[in-house]
Amino acid sequence: MKILIIGSAGMVGRKLTAALIAGGLPGPIDGLILSDVVETAIPPGAPASTRSVTTDLSKPGAAEALIAEKPGLVFHLAAIVSGEAEADFEKGYRVNFDGTRALFEAIRLEHQKSGYKPKLVFTSSIAVFGEPFPEAIPDDFFHTPLSSYGTQKAMGELLLADYSRRGFFDGIGIRLPTIVVRPGAPNKAASGFFSGILREPLAGNEARLPVGDETRHWFASPRAAVKFLLHAAKLDTSKLGARRNLTMPGLSATVGEEIAALRRAAGDRAVALIRREADPAVAKLVAGWPRNFNAARATALGFQAETTMDEIIAIHLKDELGR
Amino acid sequence: MKILIIGSAGMVGRKLTAALIAGGLPGPIDGLILSDVVETAIPPGAPASTRSVTTDLSKPGAAEALIAEKPGLVFHLAAIVSGEAEADFEKGYRVNFDGTRALFEAIRLEHQKSGYKPKLVFTSSIAVFGEPFPEAIPDDFFHTPLSSYGTQKAMGELLLADYSRRGFFDGIGIRLPTIVVRPGAPNKAASGFFSGILREPLAGNEARLPVGDETRHWFASPRAAVKFLLHAAKLDTSKLGARRNLTMPGLSATVGEEIAALRRAAGDRAVALIRREADPAVAKLVAGWPRNFNAARATALGFQAETTMDEIIAIHLKDELGR
Repeated sequence: MKILIIGSAGMVGRKLTAALIAGGLPGPIDGLILSDVVETAIPPGAPASTRSVTTDLSKPGAAEALIAEKPGLVFHLAAIVSGEAEADFEKGYRVNFDGTRALFEAIRLEHQKSGYKPKLVFTSSIAVFGEPFPEAIPDDFFHTPLSSYGTQKAMGELLLADYSRRGFFDGIGIRLPTIVVRPGAPNKAASGFFSGILREPLAGNEARLPVGDETRHWFASPRAAVKFLLHAAKLDTSKLGARRNLTMPGLSATVGEEIAALRRAAGDRAVALIRREADPAVAKLVAGWPRNFNAARATALGFQAETTMDEIIAIHLKDELGR
Repeated sequence: MKILIIGSAGMVGRKLTAALIAGGLPGPIDGLILSDVVETAIPPGAPASTRSVTTDLSKPGAAEALIAEKPGLVFHLAAIVSGEAEADFEKGYRVNFDGTRALFEAIRLEHQKSGYKPKLVFTSSIAVFGEPFPEAIPDDFFHTPLSSYGTQKAMGELLLADYSRRGFFDGIGIRLPTIVVRPGAPNKAASGFFSGILREPLAGNEARLPVGDETRHWFASPRAAVKFLLHAAKLDTSKLGARRNLTMPGLSATVGEEIAALRRAAGDRAVALIRREADPAVAKLVAGWPRNFNAARATALGFQAETTMDEIIAIHLKDELGR
């Protein structure tokens, strides 16, 4: 199996690559194409045929070049984040929507030429949902994105379903929860504090908390995200019918529950490193985000996430800090 | 007020134009631009400034040229129909999606240049919904189109909501029921028989019925469709929040109820002109279509449709046959 990962240099892309190299899918890997807008470091243990391709999917010809090798499995993880898509309207549509469409079109044209029909796994987002919504959002709730990013993901989902229905590829879209604990340096994402208030104190650093303890959100670990992707790649999509986009399971938890789990894992000294700095702008933004889902379909299809914040912290301690 | 109608040569476009000329909106019309891919005949009574523009929205520069005149109100009715969008994948996306996006982009660019911000009314379709669904589809049900046409309309709805949220225009999308009684010659639309079994017998002609009497669907008259468009144009969209696309009210009725109403209006001789020719392919297609909605939001916002098939037939007799 030849595998293409688009967005391979990102956090999830790198973890997915490592999991594939470690045998995360049945059968040998005949080739691994790691594609991103920046150079992807080829990890130790990768098959000799692994290649890093630095390219921008939204540039003319880029998608066709990637698809010319006819990978049997495509992971499309690439996107610019919510904040950037909101700040730069044209770039957001160009990368997140036109890039996705260019990929799908390249596959369709190759399909019409040669019958090529890969499995395609697309990462969507819970940003396709915007308030107001029921306390736990069901699988058949409508898309009302309150950001251009969420709009672009929702449009990608629609395209994925139509191209799959037409038989151009065998697609599945998965809506990832907010990933905690996100490793690495703090970033500018408005959701960054959900990870920051765990990651930074666990490393002995201060962290800012801009919202109240009662703030509820929807979480899964990086390890769960990779497991979702592998499970999606293996899934028999005939079970999906025409409804090819799924909300992934996750953990609905409050900031207060995060802090309580941090205390259990690392004590009061860690919790004392959280500096409360109310930020009404962030609080207002976060108030519009989903808080809880009933991910019944994905759960019935075998997708699994963590069920406690303690598990999520333990995964971070083991996978990132080697404890 | 300068008004642009895109898709002005179609059945709904022509009736809308007539209603506008007859004073369907408050205030004088300063200019009426009738745009379609074919020449639109300028109707009697039109303001002297009325112009017919033959253009294809999906061609480069076409949308910009229409928007250069800065119409304060834009009706976007243009689309190729479901069957054609399914038969010609590329044409469907080019006309129904790229054409719509080109219009929205032309407005955005003019907005950024001059602050221009028109009201925009977009006709979407109940084809954004595909089976399985609940007996009456609620306003918050998700989009699972089972056609490329429905996919293109759903993507247009998402764009409309995002461009409105961004403040580029003041948009509202309305999902029209299947229009009965559609005047004119029978067309090739799979849904055509819903009108045909009324229109043809009322004119003394035979009509084919490919499905059983129990077949249920969602209807409104051409007159109701025009009233929806005028009401949408007048509506204070601050009442919509971010959710700018609405399922219009309609009448849920069976083929058997259509025939019973035909009998009441025109007797057994008219009903005898319906020739039953079961067509399993059409029956299968129709079985995947919506049968009933709970259009609570639109109804609360003042949109109104017929409540009996007798009314719908009476409207056809009066508006089309002068009886």
